[in-house]
Amino acid sequence: MTQNAVDTAEKTPVTLLGLGAMGTALARTWLAAGHPLTVWNRTAARAEALAPEGATVARTAADAVAANSLIVVCLLDDSSVDEALAGVDLTGKDVVNLITSTPEQARARAVWARERGARYLDGGIMAIPTMIGVPEAGGYVFYSGSQDLYEEHREVLSVPAGATFVGADAGFAALHDVALLSAMYGMFGGIAHAFALIRKEDIDPASLAPLLADWLGAMAPSVHQTAQHLNSGDYTADVDSNLAMQVASTHTLLDTAAQQGVSPELIAPYFALMRRRLDVGSGEEGTTGVVDELLAG
Amino acid sequence: MTQNAVDTAEKTPVTLLGLGAMGTALARTWLAAGHPLTVWNRTAARAEALAPEGATVARTAADAVAANSLIVVCLLDDSSVDEALAGVDLTGKDVVNLITSTPEQARARAVWARERGARYLDGGIMAIPTMIGVPEAGGYVFYSGSQDLYEEHREVLSVPAGATFVGADAGFAALHDVALLSAMYGMFGGIAHAFALIRKEDIDPASLAPLLADWLGAMAPSVHQTAQHLNSGDYTADVDSNLAMQVASTHTLLDTAAQQGVSPELIAPYFALMRRRLDVGSGEEGTTGVVDELLAG
Repeated sequence: MTQNAVDTAEKTPVTLLGLGAMGTALARTWLAAGHPLTVWNRTAARAEALAPEGATVARTAADAVAANSLIVVCLLDDSSVDEALAGVDLTGKDVVNLITSTPEQARARAVWARERGARYLDGGIMAIPTMIGVPEAGGYVFYSGSQDLYEEHREVLSVPAGATFVGADAGFAALHDVALLSAMYGMFGGIAHAFALIRKEDIDPASLAPLLADWLGAMAPSVHQTAQHLNSGDYTADVDSNLAMQVASTHTLLDTAAQQGVSPELIAPYFALMRRRLDVGSGEEGTTGVVDELLAG
Repeated sequence: MTQNAVDTAEKTPVTLLGLGAMGTALARTWLAAGHPLTVWNRTAARAEALAPEGATVARTAADAVAANSLIVVCLLDDSSVDEALAGVDLTGKDVVNLITSTPEQARARAVWARERGARYLDGGIMAIPTMIGVPEAGGYVFYSGSQDLYEEHREVLSVPAGATFVGADAGFAALHDVALLSAMYGMFGGIAHAFALIRKEDIDPASLAPLLADWLGAMAPSVHQTAQHLNSGDYTADVDSNLAMQVASTHTLLDTAAQQGVSPELIAPYFALMRRRLDVGSGEEGTTGVVDELLAG
């Protein structure tokens, strides 16, 4: 009892608004680490479920905010924040907003918080709830906005998952979050196309899977060359497989899709962009120029 | 000299047709490993350049084929094979065709070879020329067709890069090759979108690059769940982030693209397919059903 009391006394108290799957996972890691935790959720049952684990259940969002200075927001979406915190006094509070949002929404929310006398940190969670509190799962959270707030609370923020600060611009955490998720969906599209190609053949998807994982893992480091190209402006440096050759080979991939009855809608747009770049760039480049074509519209 | 002569005598002689960048790289690894090598190329200069390294230069493709029983073809494309080998006697030969082709082209070429009295193996090279002869680079070649030919020549075929046999269907090497390349282009599309999102911001592409590589590497193993779903037919098993939630979150990614001036053409098609699947499937599924949507057209 005494040991627990001492531990708890040393730990930063946290208020957490929002107890969906992610909020509940966050709550449990803070409770397990001995942080005093006050919770509020629009549907009270989800908050009360955490009381036996040591959480203090606030009757209203205003009560929850009043209880502590560090306020973590994990509500459904940006408009839920306006609803939950309308008229609530945020003076002197440290608001950490983990809601998935666009960079513009995050920047607007930072202004909103400052106008109410609060410091503001925006977070983008690169993890699913089952990865929270499991360091070896590799999940982490991008943070941007008030670096003072981040440095002061880095330890408590690092309890549920790794923390990575990406800039004073409050929109940068959301931008990094969306950039990585968008890249992931591109990869998922390529993976879906690959499985579709073998779907009607006598090939076990479970035998293709490790080949796909290894190949994609081997090709992912090409991002470093792309970054070098974008920084130097020389898109031909150290190119092994040039744009002209790659464009020339796309017909084999499209013909194969047609032969296998697979819609080309997930791979054809990239091939069209490579051709557009070839029209304005050099055949000796790699594929970096596709980035510029995406911005040329 | 004696040692060299003995080594050479024990090594399978190889005929190689086609000395582009890939063919030349293959030639050099076989020469370095002590395999007697006869080469032919439409443009003779590229063949003669290998003579000082020990290659025997054939005057015609017919002469090259007559010199050895193992014939490796690395010409420009499928129609180059017809041109180069028109009227050439292939009786009793072992033809290994490394040209990038569609599964149908590979199957047709297998029939063509059998009709001429040859055994046939088709190969799909998962490497670029600089990875040939560099085992630690991880490149390899898919082979399909005659398993007898493969087993008999596995050692010589494994000299330039690892060898993986994927079935007696001559089209399967090409199908595996195209599946992996298509998945890679999907990933490249996602990567291009991610870099475009930060292009006009004060964010160094070289700081995004390692985050992208790590994230994509962490997400690539999702292929194993997709394979399990396709095999079991249960697309809801062990799903962490369900389709309904993922579809609901796509607007943040699309809105962010619009805010950053980035065309959504590389990510929107996958989102549209997720929505189509949600219309006919269950919101509790993951994204595996996208594979079926690609085949539903």
